[in-house]
Amino acid sequence: MSLIQPRTLKGFRDLMPDQAMRRARLLRIVEDVFLAHGYGPIDSPILEYAEVIKGKSGGETNKELFEFTDKGGRAVALRNDLTVPLARYVAQHEGKLVFPFRRYHIGLVYRGERPQRGRAREFLQCDADLIGATGTAADAEALVTMAAVYEALDVGPITLRVNDRRVLNGLLDTFGARDKAVPVLRALDKREKLGDEVVRTEMTAAGLEAEAIERVLEACTPREDNDATLAALEVAVGDNELGRAGIEGLRAVQALFIASGRRPEALRFDPSIARGLDYYTGVVVEAQLDALPDIGSVGAGGRYDDLAGLYTKSTLPGVGFSIGITRLMDALEALGQEATAQSPSAVMITHPGEAALEPAFAFAAALRTEGIASEVYPQPKKHGQQMRYADRRGVPYVFTRNDDGSWHGKRMADGETGTFPDHAAAAAWIHAN
Amino acid sequence: MSLIQPRTLKGFRDLMPDQAMRRARLLRIVEDVFLAHGYGPIDSPILEYAEVIKGKSGGETNKELFEFTDKGGRAVALRNDLTVPLARYVAQHEGKLVFPFRRYHIGLVYRGERPQRGRAREFLQCDADLIGATGTAADAEALVTMAAVYEALDVGPITLRVNDRRVLNGLLDTFGARDKAVPVLRALDKREKLGDEVVRTEMTAAGLEAEAIERVLEACTPREDNDATLAALEVAVGDNELGRAGIEGLRAVQALFIASGRRPEALRFDPSIARGLDYYTGVVVEAQLDALPDIGSVGAGGRYDDLAGLYTKSTLPGVGFSIGITRLMDALEALGQEATAQSPSAVMITHPGEAALEPAFAFAAALRTEGIASEVYPQPKKHGQQMRYADRRGVPYVFTRNDDGSWHGKRMADGETGTFPDHAAAAAWIHAN
Repeated sequence: MSLIQPRTLKGFRDLMPDQAMRRARLLRIVEDVFLAHGYGPIDSPILEYAEVIKGKSGGETNKELFEFTDKGGRAVALRNDLTVPLARYVAQHEGKLVFPFRRYHIGLVYRGERPQRGRAREFLQCDADLIGATGTAADAEALVTMAAVYEALDVGPITLRVNDRRVLNGLLDTFGARDKAVPVLRALDKREKLGDEVVRTEMTAAGLEAEAIERVLEACTPREDNDATLAALEVAVGDNELGRAGIEGLRAVQALFIASGRRPEALRFDPSIARGLDYYTGVVVEAQLDALPDIGSVGAGGRYDDLAGLYTKSTLPGVGFSIGITRLMDALEALGQEATAQSPSAVMITHPGEAALEPAFAFAAALRTEGIASEVYPQPKKHGQQMRYADRRGVPYVFTRNDDGSWHGKRMADGETGTFPDHAAAAAWIHAN
Repeated sequence: MSLIQPRTLKGFRDLMPDQAMRRARLLRIVEDVFLAHGYGPIDSPILEYAEVIKGKSGGETNKELFEFTDKGGRAVALRNDLTVPLARYVAQHEGKLVFPFRRYHIGLVYRGERPQRGRAREFLQCDADLIGATGTAADAEALVTMAAVYEALDVGPITLRVNDRRVLNGLLDTFGARDKAVPVLRALDKREKLGDEVVRTEMTAAGLEAEAIERVLEACTPREDNDATLAALEVAVGDNELGRAGIEGLRAVQALFIASGRRPEALRFDPSIARGLDYYTGVVVEAQLDALPDIGSVGAGGRYDDLAGLYTKSTLPGVGFSIGITRLMDALEALGQEATAQSPSAVMITHPGEAALEPAFAFAAALRTEGIASEVYPQPKKHGQQMRYADRRGVPYVFTRNDDGSWHGKRMADGETGTFPDHAAAAAWIHAN
């Protein structure tokens, strides 16, 4: 019989044991921070009605979408984000949920046939949102939780670049150009990469006067500190109410961020931040690692006015953010943080043959009660082969039983050894390191 | 604009916040036990080449499979278990993995269009396997880990019903009927439900003599204790080598199970257990809850000779098991264990308005450093409405700031209150309960 080639689809990939262990550890830390801030989990199917995922019943195709007709004749699709499923979920269970509704959701999403080479078609999204609340507390909480996540992950100092959509909208109001917000934002979004000239050309094409363009560029420049940035924005928006509300919002959020004990420097007002042109309506945020600004944002979010308008008549405003788990995995690698070993075990126990397994199993079980992950080498092999196995899997300690019933321990990193009368002594040695 | 009906596909369901929280807690406990026993995670795509999932390149359709042609023209399918993807993974990465290879995998699998009403078409599978090892240590470790999982989950006493395929095969050998193992097993599998007469009829149809049938039925009956069961099997297989090897295996596994400190009564030899007729070749196991035997098995597994023969020329024997997370969720409900609250927060902090948010945020942050999950009520509302919100979400403690800067705490369960000068005093009160 000919073999089937073992392979994955283009854009889909396996996680090797060390990568999977690292991701599991990151996710657990992220979840712990979410839970500590009052966000609980939900779950929803990966496969949904295509009309739900597409946000319309029409037949328009979306090249990125994995869609098909199931064996019951239904038009179905793999979800391509967690926001649309959240909107559907909240609309469907509106009567059973308690609002303001906080949730986090860690789940796979699918985007196919994208032009970029090597991009993942299956990836893990990690979102936290608070639905049904407006105001400073809700906005601040999102930023506080985000900053707490990165702090817990131990990826070095980060910066949350924060803006409020109302500021630019208010500014555009002052010269009657509010309707040009989207093209103006789109132009501003390119500023960092392409420079002011390109932005001026685009804004002119959008119908903005030269003087207005200069006022926008002048206002939308981050200053030496947050106070200076807000002062410049205050001058720019004058007494426009919307603009002032945006500035007041930023100021209040900053106070709560600091009150929560987060690093004040981690919050930086940056009027050039746009994010999700049609979606966000208030505060917006983009997270970057100070050590690796070039890898791009490792998280983002903001406030929106109407989450689920396609599925319910209720208006549900919210604020939320995504943590970029894949980017963070890449960042840890780029920062040279050692990948974890293939094995979660702290201890491997060797044995000279099946007749000697009982004390080995008892020793492993006893070490586990001390919080030490332990495994017994799983088959009868020569001692050298057992030692090499522990080494290759990266197990840090190996124990072998002596004839008198005591245990010989070896620390693999430096070859240090010791003799221990029982598991308690062995555990104390390990814990002391 | 008309609304899109917010609904999930038949057989697919959302997890509500309390269900999702319970499942997340269960999964974390399961993962901790796996890790403590040396099993690390891996991950693999939910979508694969259809030929990989089907184990053949032919066009034969599988009614249960979600399969389709993607936009690149590839025949693809959603995986319907985690065993085939494991086989493909191990074959594909054989050179990079260290064998014996231990892994756990928690992931979604898909089975559609099944005749049973109300069955889930998307469900979470939770598997642990040790690949590339044979012998007693490997077999025992699977049973030890399984028992440790249920013990950690706190679902009451369980029984692992354990058998070894070699015993029945050896017994059939003694009267030259080894080739009838599959129909005989299939018949035995129905014994508990349908009784001996049905089994006799089926075995006769399979070509077994009347005397042989009685010997099989007599041997395959669990006795008052494991010693008696093994003794009866020893008589039945006589000096057949395969049968004796199976019995010796069971005896050795039992010794290691007890040496590991697991409850001896949790392991019960049951020669009527079949499981996976064509797949398993040695030890087989089925877990049931002593309090709820009728809900069926809450986990199962066994030893197999050749995991990945479709994808590689290497012969990879292994032993593994699945934990039935969905059944366990149902069981906890049936056992009357309270579903967890909608909120993960232990504390909610009220506030009289946006101007009073700073101390509230500082208090919440300080409680979190004491390991107490805390949230600030997220918008300006009346005090009564804030209290009702905490109550509906099931938050156990609510704190409100007094004018003098101290904190008024209320325990929601019994209405007990207290006044606390700072977060440390409040945390001590909470931890004392």
